[in-house]
Amino acid sequence: MSSRPSTSQKKLLLRALQGERLPRPPIWLMRQAGRYLPEYRAVRAKANGFLELCYTPELAAEVTLQPLRRYALDAAILFADLPLVADALGQKLDYREGEGPVLEPIRSSGELQRLSQVRLHERLAPVYETVGLLARRLPPEVTLIGFAGAPWTLATYMVEGGGSADHAFTKRWAFGDPDGFQQLIDLLVEAISAYLSRQVEAGAEAVQLFDSWAGVLPEPAFRRWCIEPVTAIVKHLRTKHPQLPIIGFPRGAGLLYAGYAGATGVDAVSLDSTVPLGWATTAVQCDGCVQGNLDPQMLVVGGRAMATETARILRQLAGGPHIFNLGHGIVPQTPPEHVAALVEQVRTWQA
Amino acid sequence: MSSRPSTSQKKLLLRALQGERLPRPPIWLMRQAGRYLPEYRAVRAKANGFLELCYTPELAAEVTLQPLRRYALDAAILFADLPLVADALGQKLDYREGEGPVLEPIRSSGELQRLSQVRLHERLAPVYETVGLLARRLPPEVTLIGFAGAPWTLATYMVEGGGSADHAFTKRWAFGDPDGFQQLIDLLVEAISAYLSRQVEAGAEAVQLFDSWAGVLPEPAFRRWCIEPVTAIVKHLRTKHPQLPIIGFPRGAGLLYAGYAGATGVDAVSLDSTVPLGWATTAVQCDGCVQGNLDPQMLVVGGRAMATETARILRQLAGGPHIFNLGHGIVPQTPPEHVAALVEQVRTWQA
Repeated sequence: MSSRPSTSQKKLLLRALQGERLPRPPIWLMRQAGRYLPEYRAVRAKANGFLELCYTPELAAEVTLQPLRRYALDAAILFADLPLVADALGQKLDYREGEGPVLEPIRSSGELQRLSQVRLHERLAPVYETVGLLARRLPPEVTLIGFAGAPWTLATYMVEGGGSADHAFTKRWAFGDPDGFQQLIDLLVEAISAYLSRQVEAGAEAVQLFDSWAGVLPEPAFRRWCIEPVTAIVKHLRTKHPQLPIIGFPRGAGLLYAGYAGATGVDAVSLDSTVPLGWATTAVQCDGCVQGNLDPQMLVVGGRAMATETARILRQLAGGPHIFNLGHGIVPQTPPEHVAALVEQVRTWQA
Repeated sequence: MSSRPSTSQKKLLLRALQGERLPRPPIWLMRQAGRYLPEYRAVRAKANGFLELCYTPELAAEVTLQPLRRYALDAAILFADLPLVADALGQKLDYREGEGPVLEPIRSSGELQRLSQVRLHERLAPVYETVGLLARRLPPEVTLIGFAGAPWTLATYMVEGGGSADHAFTKRWAFGDPDGFQQLIDLLVEAISAYLSRQVEAGAEAVQLFDSWAGVLPEPAFRRWCIEPVTAIVKHLRTKHPQLPIIGFPRGAGLLYAGYAGATGVDAVSLDSTVPLGWATTAVQCDGCVQGNLDPQMLVVGGRAMATETARILRQLAGGPHIFNLGHGIVPQTPPEHVAALVEQVRTWQA
């Protein structure tokens, strides 16, 4: 549990997550710790590979804190990567330069025996330690966000064996053998719930569930593989941590953003860059806080184009609880000074 | 102009495009001519590369006709590829095995001088010849559909230099230098309008505009780079061919599917696999015919899962004009017998 219950009540980000409309929205940015920062690349070069960076608490905490030293952000998000849970379940994970995560794919229920929850927390212990370090080191006004991939999205990495353009193997398994695929999803619901719960016990004050590939499924599949598992995780988490603020991010869900918070029980919904905000105010913000949706490429472009788009988002979402963020993670080509300009614009904005 | 105006009035597909609700929907499938068919692979092997296949009327017509010999489809779609227009504008285009199209990227308005419309029709003449062959060879009940990529989507190929996961260069140009990018889009509006007009004059009875990457843009950019150029093309085409049925496919547009037909003037809208159909009936089908949205991976899976999903789509869209199709193109892994089962199910379906 967080050791700072009294101050945390006043943090801007937690107030927005509780549904409060604020004079200016709190701001943090997905992948705010990352390759666009030279100080990140320096730490990354010291670690023996990306996995070691994630699993070495001092290094992971350091890169989490780096953007906070440059920018007056309202939150820090734990530095880790979505496929770590697969690794902790026993699926061999590797990172190759320029390729992203590579896993030995699991494509049928017969192969599920390769996975086990027995060593989950042992393997993920360094992540919990990173959270603990961050809880002690963060400035008191900054909220510490933990995170995990949602079951569907994590499953796509586990089944495809890494990133994928069409998620073909995952879809075919889910469509053709839903009972078998359900076993994988159930296992992930349990593991992710336990993982997030431990992050909260180590000091995370809010968590975000990244369903980055929610936007590739037909409606019935979306309901079964995105809505239901996230609902189950929220229920698990709330049993242990009734007040925990939870952010859901069904990226690319389009129409299915409507009702997502109500169905799953999350407190806030992160909007990707394609969601029309006029619609979102009536269909999503009505259920609670929204977060997003500046296109990360706008942060590469900067200047007047970025300022105009930022002003539009601020204006359109000003009528309800809002956390300023991107529609997806910061890309490596982003000039750090554009991030500074964005943070300044949001912090000095007045509704 | 089509030489068969009297029979064309009775074709099922044209009736659906005119807004008629039919006892069973007509069916065709995006990329119905392609690698999943052994007879396609045989012809492909004879051609000296994919570009030669597209530019050799006898071969292109042959592969267009192949699926019609196997399946009782209601339409044939011209076999060609979206980047051909870039090639005809003078941007060097190449196809490398397993890689898709490769172009020398154009990334600023200064580089637009590399493009010229002067030889457009000369270069695309074989495509028009293919259309002419098809118009003469197709069975009378089958509708011949011409097609082109929409300007935004074609631009992504031209700017990225091929397919892309994030369309980063295209977005940065469009966001950062909208006036310069507008020059490229204007050029493409003109070229695509001329290209489609010639297809119609050669015998195409309907056309489809593929905006396959419409779903990656924030709302203001979608309106400027997807809606406006398609609206302009529709206007151009209607000047010459007032009765021409036009299908729009803003793949991944989500919420922005609503009003797309009304804004652009297309007669029908093709729905990707993620569009919830309950919503689509009230927000899209109200404006005219809808087409889609079976997930192409469902066609790989086949069996009961495919039949159930097909029945759901048939049922949900039965209240208005509907053309059965996929949400995206057939994938190479598709067993041809699954296509046969699908066509049979749709043709024997009764509302």
